[in-house]
Amino acid sequence: MTQPLILPPGIDAPTFARYLDEVRGIVGADNIDIITGEHQFVKTDYMDPAKEHDMHPVFDKDYFVSSAVVAPRSVPELQAIMKVCNDFKVPVWPFSIGRNIGYGGTAPRVPGSVGLDMGRHMDRVLEVNEKDAYCLVEPGVTFHDLYDDLVRRGLEDKLWIDVPDLGGGSVIGNTIERGVGYSPYGDHWMMHCGLEVVLPNGELVRTGMGALPEPGADQGQSPDQQKPNRCWQLFNYGFGPYHDGIFSQSNYGIVTKMGLWLMPNPGGYQAYSITFEKEDDLPAIVETVRQLRICMIIQNVATIRSLLLDAACLDTKEGYCPGVKDRALNEAEMDDIQRKTGLGRWIFYGALYGPDPVRDALWGAIKGAFSQIPGVKFYLHEEGRPAPGVLDIRSKTMRGIPTYDELKWVDWVPNGAHFFFSPIAEVRGDAATKQYQISKKRLVEAGFDVIVDFIIGMREMHHIICVVYDRTKPEERARAVEVVRRLIDECAAEGWGECTYNFNDNALMKLSEKIKDTLDPNGILAPGKNGVWPSTYDKSKWQLKAGSAVTRDSIPKTPGIPRPSKL
Amino acid sequence: MTQPLILPPGIDAPTFARYLDEVRGIVGADNIDIITGEHQFVKTDYMDPAKEHDMHPVFDKDYFVSSAVVAPRSVPELQAIMKVCNDFKVPVWPFSIGRNIGYGGTAPRVPGSVGLDMGRHMDRVLEVNEKDAYCLVEPGVTFHDLYDDLVRRGLEDKLWIDVPDLGGGSVIGNTIERGVGYSPYGDHWMMHCGLEVVLPNGELVRTGMGALPEPGADQGQSPDQQKPNRCWQLFNYGFGPYHDGIFSQSNYGIVTKMGLWLMPNPGGYQAYSITFEKEDDLPAIVETVRQLRICMIIQNVATIRSLLLDAACLDTKEGYCPGVKDRALNEAEMDDIQRKTGLGRWIFYGALYGPDPVRDALWGAIKGAFSQIPGVKFYLHEEGRPAPGVLDIRSKTMRGIPTYDELKWVDWVPNGAHFFFSPIAEVRGDAATKQYQISKKRLVEAGFDVIVDFIIGMREMHHIICVVYDRTKPEERARAVEVVRRLIDECAAEGWGECTYNFNDNALMKLSEKIKDTLDPNGILAPGKNGVWPSTYDKSKWQLKAGSAVTRDSIPKTPGIPRPSKL
Repeated sequence: MTQPLILPPGIDAPTFARYLDEVRGIVGADNIDIITGEHQFVKTDYMDPAKEHDMHPVFDKDYFVSSAVVAPRSVPELQAIMKVCNDFKVPVWPFSIGRNIGYGGTAPRVPGSVGLDMGRHMDRVLEVNEKDAYCLVEPGVTFHDLYDDLVRRGLEDKLWIDVPDLGGGSVIGNTIERGVGYSPYGDHWMMHCGLEVVLPNGELVRTGMGALPEPGADQGQSPDQQKPNRCWQLFNYGFGPYHDGIFSQSNYGIVTKMGLWLMPNPGGYQAYSITFEKEDDLPAIVETVRQLRICMIIQNVATIRSLLLDAACLDTKEGYCPGVKDRALNEAEMDDIQRKTGLGRWIFYGALYGPDPVRDALWGAIKGAFSQIPGVKFYLHEEGRPAPGVLDIRSKTMRGIPTYDELKWVDWVPNGAHFFFSPIAEVRGDAATKQYQISKKRLVEAGFDVIVDFIIGMREMHHIICVVYDRTKPEERARAVEVVRRLIDECAAEGWGECTYNFNDNALMKLSEKIKDTLDPNGILAPGKNGVWPSTYDKSKWQLKAGSAVTRDSIPKTPGIPRPSKL
Repeated sequence: MTQPLILPPGIDAPTFARYLDEVRGIVGADNIDIITGEHQFVKTDYMDPAKEHDMHPVFDKDYFVSSAVVAPRSVPELQAIMKVCNDFKVPVWPFSIGRNIGYGGTAPRVPGSVGLDMGRHMDRVLEVNEKDAYCLVEPGVTFHDLYDDLVRRGLEDKLWIDVPDLGGGSVIGNTIERGVGYSPYGDHWMMHCGLEVVLPNGELVRTGMGALPEPGADQGQSPDQQKPNRCWQLFNYGFGPYHDGIFSQSNYGIVTKMGLWLMPNPGGYQAYSITFEKEDDLPAIVETVRQLRICMIIQNVATIRSLLLDAACLDTKEGYCPGVKDRALNEAEMDDIQRKTGLGRWIFYGALYGPDPVRDALWGAIKGAFSQIPGVKFYLHEEGRPAPGVLDIRSKTMRGIPTYDELKWVDWVPNGAHFFFSPIAEVRGDAATKQYQISKKRLVEAGFDVIVDFIIGMREMHHIICVVYDRTKPEERARAVEVVRRLIDECAAEGWGECTYNFNDNALMKLSEKIKDTLDPNGILAPGKNGVWPSTYDKSKWQLKAGSAVTRDSIPKTPGIPRPSKL
């Protein structure tokens, strides 16, 4: 047998071979890949091989790597695999496609886990309901697939999907990681309706109205094949405790089917952009957006992008400022780019949804409010009439048409990779200014350009701080990790958190761990995902501490730390 | 010591006395009431004594009765009580106010449980945030209290609340039972943001962003008193598994604080009603509503009310048809009421939100669509200009102003009480017709009038079937229970469920029970609520089976059934 690069923790080679024999009996030899090379991501067949889809490699590529990847062909096969994993105590790391950049991918938290490739075979759009405006999908359906499916059915004008910046990720993967898009249906989790979940013990659950059998459903069929209740995708809550949330950003179950609401054509659409001249305009922009957003005059998920985020979609750093390397651009260089591109220091992208009189009323209010900021310019998207920046692309995105164009900005530097930190804050001018000052200071200090975005949901603001670096340079990777670690600490000190949710002696984490241990007593499902470790792991030994480890061999060799076994 | 009417299951009088001594040490003697009388509801001090607030007594009043009611004055007292309850294995039944008619009340599922009166002392509006449009409340805050609080702050025009039909219930109680109102913010659970929960073991958790400590919060204070993170009410999800849902319609924890989003003044408001002449118009109305609702032309939670629901708000059955008793009204009598009141056989109530041009556009679309139904009449609400039915009341309700006027319809029959059944269905004309036929047939057969309402959320329809009966007549109560049991079965057979969620061998219930046992190993928190029994109870012995028991003494005396101990 081909030997994997590494084995699951605590599993020796003969045991792993026996484990794989059992799994092979379930899925067939074709659906098991032993991971022998030093690459985290295994799904090269899905992507352009010239454009590696892992954009945030900060550890050495042989660190977060699977021992093998298994692709079940059906829900009963998945259920059977879970039982074998429990028997052997082999951890699994499920992924749908592995392309929801920003929410994780195919690389397991525990090196040597077995990747579960949910999307390779289970990739059907099971239903599109025109009257009720929803779909039911399997894990392998990407936003692009879903859009294509609507086109095939001739429904792409009637039912709109909501897409993230890039259209290649799994709809289920993005939604259960609570990803967002930019239309009025931008909060994907809010818009999901009904889950089918395989629990760590292999049991199959349908949530909400899916728990109510449909009359006439064939009880002799495997439960996952039974005709679902007709209200499964119509009403989320069902009766009794509403469990769906615990299967989001979690390791409590594997979602095998999910309903998602689609947006009926609102009767009209107009994308627009607004540019602002000065860096200091930020607080006024944020205050204006809050007031318009909270009363739905701005109807969609609003974005305030920094100059370089837009500029990077149009050209490279070298293209704008030849010869500038290993340092951030200075103010004069930024001014120059602003002049060349016709962009603002900040660019706001939005869209109007509804028939003419509604759009006119909204646009009047939006224009009136932003006109208070000196130097503001307004652009309405028109086919064939160019506007500065990426309005052409955003016009598609906010309409739910998947694109890939924004992959481009990662090429800002040669061999570009990126790394996100996105603290959540109140929608306030002074909060935005303070966050921006902190991030700018630390990024520039570390030699990185300031490429940021403020995304405003209903009442909160995500400040997306992008660190773009050369993935081929270990020193630069290490710097990228360190600057983000520093930003996490500095933002947490201000109360803007990403992962320091330790109120009342970590009460919420204790709750998460208690439920984890109940549903997954052997700790086999994605241990450590979102910081939730089962009690079968000593989590203190699995921490990746500040200052440590961007190469596998630099992980401290403290006795007792369960480093992955290398064959 | 005063002796209670009944004791908690398995607890003898001396043990109960010792339990109460410990609880008295926590809350003081003033905050313990021993329940000695045959009444389910103990909070007479909150309500008009002339109008008993239990509208659905179907069992004898001494059946679902508490042994005692305890009112903690603070979160730490509640935490201490939970510890004592665990020590003594005494079940508790928390309630906020007990007035969320339709979602339960103060009567415990397990007779003899100790009622936990969360609202008596903890009744503060802790925060109203004008800029971010939210509030943070304690359990005892009613919709009316919250509205009054906004009036006191001079904010009632800027920030609108969403109210159910009656304004006297607890905001927390209604929301965690997933109650709805009738404005664009009608899905209260969707609009909540951030929970503070005491778990059955007494631990205190804050969910979402509340798990992130606020900088400068005094760590020396009791955790429930610590200044919460400023984003707690701005962003629901936080990081990691999103737990909030499992604390709704459940018995996993006691919510002690909750954030709720308020609706910023939309810039204009207009309530309207539309009447339809014929019973057979129902499917056309429903089809029209779906198409308008799903694309948000109808912006709020739409209601289609039957003639008698409106008529009963204006007069009694005896007033309309003197001498008609013990049978449903016939078609001729209904026609007569329709003529007298100027109402339709169906009446649709809605509202338009937004500035003039937006409202005009929406009203044009709504009028155009409904005009296809012959005999339709449109009414815009105008101060001082009467419209048929309850448009005056609904205009307040859909604007978020609490009222109590609709208590009136329960007086349809003498000593009126009511009982709901509300199956969830797809929004379809034929589904509405079929449900209506089933409910009409069974109600009329059983001698009850057809008082129903179709409430349309985003993509689903709740068919509210109201059984109004004379609470003083045991035979009539028994008939009311039997007709609803029959309707539950007949609707479940069509796939429209309220509580028969047994897909895949009750997989979802098993999940609920597994989590219940983990969080509440002694099974002390509201055992049996929403059908979730802890494993410390033999649930088969606690079922209330068809054909059984509307009086306490008629509960089958099967050996082993843990009937409440009577002193």
